[in-house]
Amino acid sequence: MIAQAVVTPIAFPDPPLLNSSGVHEPWALRTIVELRTGDGLVGLGETYGDDAHLALVRTAAAALEGLDPFDLNGLVRRVSEALGGVDAPDAHGLTGGSSPQKTLARVVSAFEVACLDLQGRATGRPLHAILGGKVRDAVPYSAYLFYKWGAHPGAEPDGWGEAIDPDGIVAQAKLMVSEYGFGSIKLKGGVFPPDEEIAAIRALREAFPGHPLRLDPNTAWTVDTSIKVAEETDGLLEYLEDPTPGNPGMGEVAARSPMPLATNMCVVSFADVPEAVALGSVGVILSDHHYWGGLRASQRLAGICETFGIGLSMHSNSHLGISLAAMTHLAAATPTLAYACDTHTPWQSGVDVIEPGVLRFTGGAVPVPDSPGLGVELDRDALARMHEDYLRCGIRKRDDTGYMKRFQPDYQRRLPRW
Amino acid sequence: MIAQAVVTPIAFPDPPLLNSSGVHEPWALRTIVELRTGDGLVGLGETYGDDAHLALVRTAAAALEGLDPFDLNGLVRRVSEALGGVDAPDAHGLTGGSSPQKTLARVVSAFEVACLDLQGRATGRPLHAILGGKVRDAVPYSAYLFYKWGAHPGAEPDGWGEAIDPDGIVAQAKLMVSEYGFGSIKLKGGVFPPDEEIAAIRALREAFPGHPLRLDPNTAWTVDTSIKVAEETDGLLEYLEDPTPGNPGMGEVAARSPMPLATNMCVVSFADVPEAVALGSVGVILSDHHYWGGLRASQRLAGICETFGIGLSMHSNSHLGISLAAMTHLAAATPTLAYACDTHTPWQSGVDVIEPGVLRFTGGAVPVPDSPGLGVELDRDALARMHEDYLRCGIRKRDDTGYMKRFQPDYQRRLPRW
Repeated sequence: MIAQAVVTPIAFPDPPLLNSSGVHEPWALRTIVELRTGDGLVGLGETYGDDAHLALVRTAAAALEGLDPFDLNGLVRRVSEALGGVDAPDAHGLTGGSSPQKTLARVVSAFEVACLDLQGRATGRPLHAILGGKVRDAVPYSAYLFYKWGAHPGAEPDGWGEAIDPDGIVAQAKLMVSEYGFGSIKLKGGVFPPDEEIAAIRALREAFPGHPLRLDPNTAWTVDTSIKVAEETDGLLEYLEDPTPGNPGMGEVAARSPMPLATNMCVVSFADVPEAVALGSVGVILSDHHYWGGLRASQRLAGICETFGIGLSMHSNSHLGISLAAMTHLAAATPTLAYACDTHTPWQSGVDVIEPGVLRFTGGAVPVPDSPGLGVELDRDALARMHEDYLRCGIRKRDDTGYMKRFQPDYQRRLPRW
Repeated sequence: MIAQAVVTPIAFPDPPLLNSSGVHEPWALRTIVELRTGDGLVGLGETYGDDAHLALVRTAAAALEGLDPFDLNGLVRRVSEALGGVDAPDAHGLTGGSSPQKTLARVVSAFEVACLDLQGRATGRPLHAILGGKVRDAVPYSAYLFYKWGAHPGAEPDGWGEAIDPDGIVAQAKLMVSEYGFGSIKLKGGVFPPDEEIAAIRALREAFPGHPLRLDPNTAWTVDTSIKVAEETDGLLEYLEDPTPGNPGMGEVAARSPMPLATNMCVVSFADVPEAVALGSVGVILSDHHYWGGLRASQRLAGICETFGIGLSMHSNSHLGISLAAMTHLAAATPTLAYACDTHTPWQSGVDVIEPGVLRFTGGAVPVPDSPGLGVELDRDALARMHEDYLRCGIRKRDDTGYMKRFQPDYQRRLPRW
């Protein structure tokens, strides 16, 4: 039984990564959840760190004493009651309109992962076994390229250098692929006019002739622009991610695109699925246990995708090792997750809350841990340091647009922009 | 790890129950699966007993040595390889056209239940906890009425008496409800002309004013007849089951029916779901872990139903206590399974393969066992007796139509008939 739920907000340095909403601030926020049982086990979870979400996570945590970590239905019921039907938008606005169901799913998730971690630890089984058994020994991830500045204004350059054109993107890709061995490459677009991003994709294809490529402008384009880009990148992309907002627009683009459209923006909850199926708007759903409601909910999504012939990949926001472990176990136990998953791991500046050594990349893939539960342990010194960084950093809500405006006062978030 | 898989075909007496394909033979067949681990645990499963299915179950059983009972993905892979893509129709033809996927699901199921039973026994957890936690302490079942003869020809009358008209059906219902406490009533129809069955429903409504009622003619009616019956039973039925064959016909009926249509015949595998969603042909799916591929697959179906706003109920064929335990744990851990489930328990002639005392009906519901795994134990004396009955009974394949023809030589299975 859960005796105590501990919630710790932390921060870690984040490079100035550009996207269709602005630029990453110098600190990324996360919340670490620990569920401690009466017999001394600790289950771990990781979620968003913005203050509105943190407050809900704390409210939920206060309602979990006495919960059996096997009782995932009871977890949902308790969190639902604790939140009382609150409807809170996500801080960065990337998952569309809010609803009580989406809020609940986002808050439940970290606790659900921690409960599953406890199930594994209590039974001496790795999490992938709890989830149905691993079908692969290592989970392939994709290089996740960003246009970026060479440094946060006023700060020292980071090790990645500037990337604001095709040459910069190719250099970043070479560095990342040489260090991690990634066999697939995704470019976060929506930053420069589409022709410049198409040129970057062409440069990547030349530099990496055998790597599947993806482009994700985060709905920066109109339907017409999206169709034009899709036609011009015919044969270059394994999928095109969220070119334009909403299922109706995505459906129009999908009908005229030579490659599948992928999404982590127009299908972000179960309530979005029927419309997407009816319109044929997406060929690939990028699942993300952080907002779909956990690992069992992600398996439910996998079953829906398989049933309706929709491909399955995996989305990532800035994250640390607890989430990487959860993503890896889930992907390992999901036979139909055939695409390399997204990860922000290379961007976490070498900082983590978990003890080093368990998770590593080899040939672009993370070997699946076989020790009980998630297989990772909290580094309590690191957790304390990162909590201090959280207290000091002054950031309480992700605000890519506001941060961009500090340096480009006329900057506006406009989706679609082109 | 699984050290041995034991497969035992058994038979138990079955009353002369009538349906749209004929009449039940004097013996119902089942196959009992035992998965024995190296450390002495035994996991139980129960499935169909016809010889073609039994042969596939035996083929699968031979491939399971060394399997970790947590590795459900590995179970599917091993059984799939062992079956080699065989495409075997189900013996009674109630689940429509055959496919390798449906064959695999049907064979995997009993082993999956046995693996989950082992997971529970190995971890000291009831199966409902393995499945996500019970949301109800007892699972309501429905009275399952059949038109029937008073006795198998040439045999002694059974305790239920004849039921070939409204009075007989009401008498059967009163007997069953008084003994089991059922709060819902289902009539298996498709036996007599629709007007006679409508009269039986009206008689049931009069005798049981507060009981939700269901009618299931097993596709005995044309679209036009179905619509006519639906209109005439407006306000009488909580749902109308499989009035007519196939999703297109069901869709036509659904569009003009005042009550939801339910099915365990036109949506019997994941491959059937997209058409049903597109046509709006069903309002309720009756899940059945025996042919959907097990309990996790049934949970996947539950997630699909929830996502697409389709109701969820549970189907039953002639079964024994292992299946009743599995159905009860599954239903207990499935929040959206809001309808009373079907069960053939009252028709099993007091015979079972499990030790008595764990499963019982109180107020029409089965209290959910809280001991490890399924919570039921094999009665080995009963198993041996019932295996002897299997060897002696001479029946190797369910054949309701052939049995009927022995007494009514001009009988033809015709679906739809009216």
